[in-house]
Amino acid sequence: MAQQERGVRTRRAVLEAAAVVFAENGYSAATVSEILQIAGVTKGALYFHFDSKEALARGVLQAQVAYVAPPHELKLQEWVDGGLLLAHVLPRDPVVRAGAVLSSDPQGREHYGSAWPAWVDVSAQTLTEAKERGEILAHVVPRQTAELIVGAFHGVQLYSQLECGLADVERRIAVLYEHLIPAITVPAVLVRLDLAPDRGARLYSQAVSIPSALVDSAR
Amino acid sequence: MAQQERGVRTRRAVLEAAAVVFAENGYSAATVSEILQIAGVTKGALYFHFDSKEALARGVLQAQVAYVAPPHELKLQEWVDGGLLLAHVLPRDPVVRAGAVLSSDPQGREHYGSAWPAWVDVSAQTLTEAKERGEILAHVVPRQTAELIVGAFHGVQLYSQLECGLADVERRIAVLYEHLIPAITVPAVLVRLDLAPDRGARLYSQAVSIPSALVDSAR
Repeated sequence: MAQQERGVRTRRAVLEAAAVVFAENGYSAATVSEILQIAGVTKGALYFHFDSKEALARGVLQAQVAYVAPPHELKLQEWVDGGLLLAHVLPRDPVVRAGAVLSSDPQGREHYGSAWPAWVDVSAQTLTEAKERGEILAHVVPRQTAELIVGAFHGVQLYSQLECGLADVERRIAVLYEHLIPAITVPAVLVRLDLAPDRGARLYSQAVSIPSALVDSAR
Repeated sequence: MAQQERGVRTRRAVLEAAAVVFAENGYSAATVSEILQIAGVTKGALYFHFDSKEALARGVLQAQVAYVAPPHELKLQEWVDGGLLLAHVLPRDPVVRAGAVLSSDPQGREHYGSAWPAWVDVSAQTLTEAKERGEILAHVVPRQTAELIVGAFHGVQLYSQLECGLADVERRIAVLYEHLIPAITVPAVLVRLDLAPDRGARLYSQAVSIPSALVDSAR
């Protein structure tokens, strides 16, 4: 195995171990020694890739943003797909789950940032394009709706987490979109949108290249 | 001052001090000694009313549910009013703010419960009555929408908390309702609803008796 490939694998193992610990305990209670134990790497190997707990949190957050829905002829469908795909991945990928925990931590935010501003930017950009194409109603303010979806999505996934450990998160996120979409969408587009709870799973099975984004961002 | 009145005041002081500490630090990091210091009461007085940190958290959660919107001829307006009133009170009342922090704490929930199930019940009841009166559309499932609003409300208020310490929470919660209401409401009712961000403040100034519910629940 080439040295570069080994480095990528080690970085990935550390990132996933950190994600498991952050997702379960939150940032403050997480310790580097617990992360080391789960990753099964040496302290030197960990610190070669991430020089602090803060750097680990930043790495997890960067990895989370790598999930992107595939292009679609309707920009609004792309917007919904981003959320449904994230809902599908959330119970399956500790990196994504840790990203949600870290991003919503009031104490943690000043140490390592949050994925929410990046999510709002991506979401507002897609909604702006949807508006330019006449898919959404004239009164909609893309950034306002983008900030709303990031906040509401967080609350709904947390509700599912506390109720049943995310077992029904895809259904709950689909319900969220069912309730939001009629307020922003022109009728001709509304009838063409797919908001089904299993859409995230279908997108995920198509988008085989998505997880490799984690590896691509490795140094 | 009669002994009973002194007891009510002490209980209230302890509850408010506990709320300040829970709202700022969360349940796990909060200590009884910090609560004692802020309340300015003796340890004996505190433990007479609340025999543990758990009991304090339960007391704060019970006090939070006491804010109720006044009756309205449209049940759906009552439903919205509950949320707009809560959004107005949130930055002003540490008991309510602590209730939000405690209710969404994954570790804390097993110790003292959560206000969310009670909110869902109240919300589902109001929506069921709105449906019986023909105010909301036939496909709406009241409990599903009630669970959605409790989750989404939490996420939106947390977004406001992290962005600006709740300074814009009333506007953000109004935006949430603007996005949800068109999907569930019959047209003739839709045009009669008031979703303005300042409605919570107007309701609060009318409902002078509401804060006394906190005192009424004292033992």
